[in-house]
Amino acid sequence: MTTTEQEPRLIPDFGEDTDRKMAFIASKGTLDMAYPALIMANAALGEGIEAHIFFTFWGLDMINKKTMHDLKFTPLGNPATHMPQGLGGLPGMTAMATHMMKKQIAELGVPEVPEFLQMIVDAGGHLWACKMSADMMGLGEDDLFDGVEGILSATEFIELTDGAQIIFI
Amino acid sequence: MTTTEQEPRLIPDFGEDTDRKMAFIASKGTLDMAYPALIMANAALGEGIEAHIFFTFWGLDMINKKTMHDLKFTPLGNPATHMPQGLGGLPGMTAMATHMMKKQIAELGVPEVPEFLQMIVDAGGHLWACKMSADMMGLGEDDLFDGVEGILSATEFIELTDGAQIIFI
Amino acid sequence: MTTTEQEPRLIPDFGEDTDRKMAFIASKGTLDMAYPALIMANAALGEGIEAHIFFTFWGLDMINKKTMHDLKFTPLGNPATHMPQGLGGLPGMTAMATHMMKKQIAELGVPEVPEFLQMIVDAGGHLWACKMSADMMGLGEDDLFDGVEGILSATEFIELTDGAQIIFI
Repeated sequence: MTTTEQEPRLIPDFGEDTDRKMAFIASKGTLDMAYPALIMANAALGEGIEAHIFFTFWGLDMINKKTMHDLKFTPLGNPATHMPQGLGGLPGMTAMATHMMKKQIAELGVPEVPEFLQMIVDAGGHLWACKMSADMMGLGEDDLFDGVEGILSATEFIELTDGAQIIFI
Repeated sequence: MTTTEQEPRLIPDFGEDTDRKMAFIASKGTLDMAYPALIMANAALGEGIEAHIFFTFWGLDMINKKTMHDLKFTPLGNPATHMPQGLGGLPGMTAMATHMMKKQIAELGVPEVPEFLQMIVDAGGHLWACKMSADMMGLGEDDLFDGVEGILSATEFIELTDGAQIIFI
Repeated sequence: MTTTEQEPRLIPDFGEDTDRKMAFIASKGTLDMAYPALIMANAALGEGIEAHIFFTFWGLDMINKKTMHDLKFTPLGNPATHMPQGLGGLPGMTAMATHMMKKQIAELGVPEVPEFLQMIVDAGGHLWACKMSADMMGLGEDDLFDGVEGILSATEFIELTDGAQIIFI
């Protein structure tokens, strides 16, 4: 993975090794659904593929300094957790389910969300915030993870993703 | 954005200005997840990109005349709302959360779902309903928003999306 | 649909009739969200398109021999079911909602998940499990539906999906 800090090129590009480009839209703010974009973007970067993650809607929590260290998991609405749905709303249930999932993730050697984001930035990945979502939540660039390159409008996102495999999570 | 009403061309197309095509699959019927397809399709159309939205599963609620004006939002199952999950099931909670979200959306100048759909149709976007979902819910063309061009089978959808960036929401 | 069992070719391929390739990521383990990948992959195969389904996160339940016959549906967190959210957590509610949805699906002539998976395999579709998810749940190849071709790392998935339309569900 090369980066754009290297010597200038004749045509502007992101310095990737192939023509392939992938753009992940991270729209969820739960602990479980934070990982698909991170894992796939990381794998793509390892293959020399240009990779972008665009954080929008609830996904903004993944790069909001106030929330990114504390994403939660709830079994509510997800019967695939094999936990009775009536229990999911009890006090402490979200905290317990979150704790258990964090432990399982750590045991696999997978980094927590903030460390994973930094890894992706270090590998040349590009992180972007959605302008409309940021406006809705009253967030500016200072409120966001330092690795975020900028806040993009929907139009800018559409332009950025020309020719990309777009994956909405 | 040009439209198909213009003078005939030698090869049939939807009259768009680029070769790029985007197809959004709207499968959710909640107020929050109604917007990603609308916002991205609208931005794509502004860039002269051929844009299709295919409504399927719960997403059919977005174009069902009986429900499209009354989509709801629930914090249940979504801890990114930062509301205790035990409260989400209390009577009135869905109504309150829906009301708050509608207010936030209006403050950003973003139209409500029916108006947004009409904007997309007026800009040359294409709306389609999923045949299997419509059959499952007992809905015919008369039950659907007038801007919907037709009810497509899965096979017709696959054919329509040849060469498109497909985004499942 | 031809299959790879036919006479050898000079370049390795999956024997499909077009250059088009679709890859579905099935990340949900609920009864309703099990179907989009199955329906689209099946329709794609009918058009001679190379089709892959990659099961990851909760989607592993769709190919786990212990759970694949018993996927559940809950109205919790899904106000598009038009059922008061407070009721969704009551004992028996998930079972009742699951029973009703299974009945509706059967009435449409759509097969249950295990039969549908077998149909896709028989039509030449490719099923893959996610290594990280399988590790997290302690599952090996023997625990998975026989039609699954293998367990892939994220990197192998990225390589497999070069040139594909990728659809995350």
